[in-house]
Amino acid sequence: MMRALEAARKAAAAGEVPVGAVIVLSGEIVAVAANATRHPADPTGHAEIRALRAAAEKLGRDRLTDCDLYVTLEPCAMCAGAISHARIARLYYAASDPKGGAVEHGARVFEHAQCFHKPEVYSGMGEAEAAEMLREFFRERR
Amino acid sequence: MMRALEAARKAAAAGEVPVGAVIVLSGEIVAVAANATRHPADPTGHAEIRALRAAAEKLGRDRLTDCDLYVTLEPCAMCAGAISHARIARLYYAASDPKGGAVEHGARVFEHAQCFHKPEVYSGMGEAEAAEMLREFFRERR
Repeated sequence: MMRALEAARKAAAAGEVPVGAVIVLSGEIVAVAANATRHPADPTGHAEIRALRAAAEKLGRDRLTDCDLYVTLEPCAMCAGAISHARIARLYYAASDPKGGAVEHGARVFEHAQCFHKPEVYSGMGEAEAAEMLREFFRERR
Repeated sequence: MMRALEAARKAAAAGEVPVGAVIVLSGEIVAVAANATRHPADPTGHAEIRALRAAAEKLGRDRLTDCDLYVTLEPCAMCAGAISHARIARLYYAASDPKGGAVEHGARVFEHAQCFHKPEVYSGMGEAEAAEMLREFFRERR
């Protein structure tokens, strides 16, 4: 999660919403990514999506069955859906997101019969730092 | 939708689940994409995601506010979330998908207070052809 927070800090410095994600396989980091929806322009450029794509490319398979994903913010519906598609084993997220989250809020993507794969979910580690980074980012932009 | 069905046929020929998507801006096609999760390996490689990324890259902006998206199958949670992020104006889909769809089934991504942008949704055009293509694809693989 330290590496995910570090990626989030870099996103903020680049003017992107500070969210970072890391994918781990057997204790080794496979991919690190930060949120990047503006540069390049990509509405799907959330940290989780970018990390999943990078890990799939690196491992040469679209199912990351034995991989864990660490992310600094509760995934949205898009990212939760992608985590299911990738068959991620364990999802760890820092801050929860009542506004845009779709794990414990809103669409609750993993809670439907249609969800063919639900990862184990753990939250809260690194929460204070992740949340403060987001608050500061949006405070500066107001 | 004819172009989306054509892209879906090409996906089937390449061994990928036959789903195609097209993005239209002011009557002009901006992007056409087919499902491609195996080659290259990409768990996020649904037709909608690939079309949204291509359109954003082409137009140089992550918000496709005035664009419409045509897709041959009801979007899943991942794709519905991405459609929201991209601020797609109108979503047209052919076949509905009780198993994996998240527009009129399951997570119903557009129906939550957390959904900050809901496109106008139209369905059914090209449904028979889109559904038959999927049935045939899975029949051959059983």
